[in-house]
Amino acid sequence: MELRENERIDDLERKGYRIIQNREKFCFGVDAVLLSWYAEIREGEKAIDLGTGNGIVPLLLDARYDGGSYVGLEIQEDMAEMAGRSVQLNEVESRIRIVQGDIKEASKLFNKGTFDVVTTNPPYMAADTGLKNPDQAKAIARHEVLCSLDDVVRESALLLHPGGRFYMIHRPSRLTEILQKMKEYKLAPSRICMVHPYADKDATMVLVYGKKGGRDILKIDPPVVVYENPGVYTPMIAEIYGDGRH
Amino acid sequence: MELRENERIDDLERKGYRIIQNREKFCFGVDAVLLSWYAEIREGEKAIDLGTGNGIVPLLLDARYDGGSYVGLEIQEDMAEMAGRSVQLNEVESRIRIVQGDIKEASKLFNKGTFDVVTTNPPYMAADTGLKNPDQAKAIARHEVLCSLDDVVRESALLLHPGGRFYMIHRPSRLTEILQKMKEYKLAPSRICMVHPYADKDATMVLVYGKKGGRDILKIDPPVVVYENPGVYTPMIAEIYGDGRH
Repeated sequence: MELRENERIDDLERKGYRIIQNREKFCFGVDAVLLSWYAEIREGEKAIDLGTGNGIVPLLLDARYDGGSYVGLEIQEDMAEMAGRSVQLNEVESRIRIVQGDIKEASKLFNKGTFDVVTTNPPYMAADTGLKNPDQAKAIARHEVLCSLDDVVRESALLLHPGGRFYMIHRPSRLTEILQKMKEYKLAPSRICMVHPYADKDATMVLVYGKKGGRDILKIDPPVVVYENPGVYTPMIAEIYGDGRH
Repeated sequence: MELRENERIDDLERKGYRIIQNREKFCFGVDAVLLSWYAEIREGEKAIDLGTGNGIVPLLLDARYDGGSYVGLEIQEDMAEMAGRSVQLNEVESRIRIVQGDIKEASKLFNKGTFDVVTTNPPYMAADTGLKNPDQAKAIARHEVLCSLDDVVRESALLLHPGGRFYMIHRPSRLTEILQKMKEYKLAPSRICMVHPYADKDATMVLVYGKKGGRDILKIDPPVVVYENPGVYTPMIAEIYGDGRH
């Protein structure tokens, strides 16, 4: 496969899967890996990843679970095109379909109530907060330039059938708003999992699992701690990076 | 001091403080200890503990911090009376005052906006859920028989001045509702801390800290893990039980 300028191919260290990334644009991080570890896909299930970027989450999930099928929705044309080439590179076109389109319109692009699972690693920062990255692709991935938390949760709820599952990774700073939005759109918050860089530091990420039409009884998973010492992963993270199973 | 039937005196292992407990009624547990560890009282501050039971939280806080003053509000007459005797036993009447009264009326019993801190370890279970304890005192402590989460959060917000601090321990299952109520009554959720029995088990308690009129930016503290092995506390819990300082 021919690569474009600034592109490289990275090995995902799972079943030989690889991904094309553009170092000038957005490269995947630990958040995508954690999201694909937290989400569960059962045989025959249909999942959609909202704001898939270079397609990392569907690729990791497909490498991990047998029998699922995936849509990756991405608004940026060049990013969607690159994700499509990664799908070809891994020869998984029969299971992963990349669609270029807007999260805000997702429930118009696809049939409502037809997905078993939604995964999403949306922009973390409200449009009006923090320094925006001057690079457009990075700004779109990090700031709510093109879609808000409300858009993401609302469209997810519309895409899922009753009992369908919603998995998101986000920032602790937004947790109150996240739980409120999920409740508003009847995606009952069922589990959250805090991710701490070290055991004695504040959480920097939160994994959220909600169930469409479920009961409002939240459970809190054991925490994920990333580092044991600077540069040394905890056994749990080494395992997550290793084979993605828990 | 003369004890009544079923009463005993327990040593709090802090500065020689002791407490009267009635083994037929409600005895304090790890939740009260964790709440008094999580709350911070600065010199000259005025705190109120809503639903103080046998007065354990004000006693632990007074043993830990210099210069604070405390009100313990308790609806059950015999419990309030017993808490009052513990205050006498420790000769801290100048700093801790036990008042018999109803949380639902707290903002009528005291002047609004006059407290720096509210602490509360309210009943965890909604009135219509779970098995109620046939013993009245235990049922009142555990189920929302006499006051609801809404009552507790609303009255806390009324008692605090702007910038005042709210500390509560509760169950993870109610967290979505807790954060929503706090936001509703302008007690901005500022920090939460999960308490896990073991590092690899779901949280069983959550500590919540809110600020009256604060900004809606939540931080998540490093988790508290209670046991290293069955019957063996983690160093952190040993320290919390030991001298209450973190």
